[in-house]
Amino acid sequence: MLGKLYGIGVGPGDSGLITQKAIEIINKIDGIVAPISKMGKESKAFNIARPYLKSDVEIIELEFPMINLEKEKEALNEKWKENATEIVRRLEEGKNLAFLTLGDPMVYSTYSYLFPYLEEVNIKPITIPGITSFCASASELGVPIVQGNETFCVLTQITSIEEFDKYKELFENIIIMKPFSSRETINAAIEKYNLHDNVYAISNCGSENQVISTGLIKEDISYFTLILIKF
Amino acid sequence: MLGKLYGIGVGPGDSGLITQKAIEIINKIDGIVAPISKMGKESKAFNIARPYLKSDVEIIELEFPMINLEKEKEALNEKWKENATEIVRRLEEGKNLAFLTLGDPMVYSTYSYLFPYLEEVNIKPITIPGITSFCASASELGVPIVQGNETFCVLTQITSIEEFDKYKELFENIIIMKPFSSRETINAAIEKYNLHDNVYAISNCGSENQVISTGLIKEDISYFTLILIKF
Repeated sequence: MLGKLYGIGVGPGDSGLITQKAIEIINKIDGIVAPISKMGKESKAFNIARPYLKSDVEIIELEFPMINLEKEKEALNEKWKENATEIVRRLEEGKNLAFLTLGDPMVYSTYSYLFPYLEEVNIKPITIPGITSFCASASELGVPIVQGNETFCVLTQITSIEEFDKYKELFENIIIMKPFSSRETINAAIEKYNLHDNVYAISNCGSENQVISTGLIKEDISYFTLILIKF
Repeated sequence: MLGKLYGIGVGPGDSGLITQKAIEIINKIDGIVAPISKMGKESKAFNIARPYLKSDVEIIELEFPMINLEKEKEALNEKWKENATEIVRRLEEGKNLAFLTLGDPMVYSTYSYLFPYLEEVNIKPITIPGITSFCASASELGVPIVQGNETFCVLTQITSIEEFDKYKELFENIIIMKPFSSRETINAAIEKYNLHDNVYAISNCGSENQVISTGLIKEDISYFTLILIKF
């Protein structure tokens, strides 16, 4: 019988923020797909799951390159197809596998790139949602993301004031996931609209070196920072 | 000593989607703030927590009206202040309390309306994030919310095609939390842009009567429906 493939969100990093359902599945799983990337992001997911794994679990290390570079798309597709084939081979051996993702598997995770390849061979994975980094960040900040009939959006960057204005017109709340490259635009917007009390930054959320600030974004901000803007 | 107030996200309804941290706190808590509303939404949160509660836990039933009606704002503020006073009184007795919310406490929850009243008396609650309904819905649908450098937004409604066009221009992915009142606009947009394969609806996510559909939204759609649009 074909094994099952689970995509499991293990939350943002704090081992307490994993769900009961995720633990139950990880407890019984035959193999863990452990994506290797240069960011070290995936090994964090594996560390959260580690205490719950069977002693004889198989660790399947696969290289999952980030698909951001349009130019290299073809080579990346090839790599993904190769990975999917490796996974399907083990499912065909009857093994149940878990693909771990930090945060939620449907929000900016590499796991979802497997879907088209799995669909080709009629395999439907089971996805277990996880706590997103933006929910965890809002909790740590003590600031609501959205209330009542408000709206919010999640962006990876804002690169100009014109772009900022468009979002500002439509939303009461903006989350920027990787604000590093948007620092100058955000700071310009803070000055222009006097948003010194409206912009929250949280770096390394939930870890020992968590840093919270409001107002202008500093130059030496951590790569693992999230911004919440409330108008 | 002043007791602690926890705002706890218990997830979207499935009792397996509660976190370890939430369970640990609920296990030891002295009192549960059980918001009463006409929607029956909050009692669902209480039912998820029930198996983990101490036998002698105090249930503090407070009426938390939804703050949507601008007109009644003053009366509502009065009610909220009253509730906050009730909570603070118990914290001053040294009791630890948990305010339960479905989904995540920072995403469309009544819990966050307490913040200004707590701030006045210098009480800082501790918030434990939860699985949002949109993450759980995307998992059930088997459709990613957002990938790579894409963006997404979360709305409660879209009331005209002009409004729809503005969001469509800026986003690859749109989530509509309460699509009931937006049915006609969404259907008009589906016809106009041929989005029959791009609009996913999921009703009563995770429950026995979960229904998934794509394309045009039916007239008798459940109130508890979420829409994901992918361009």
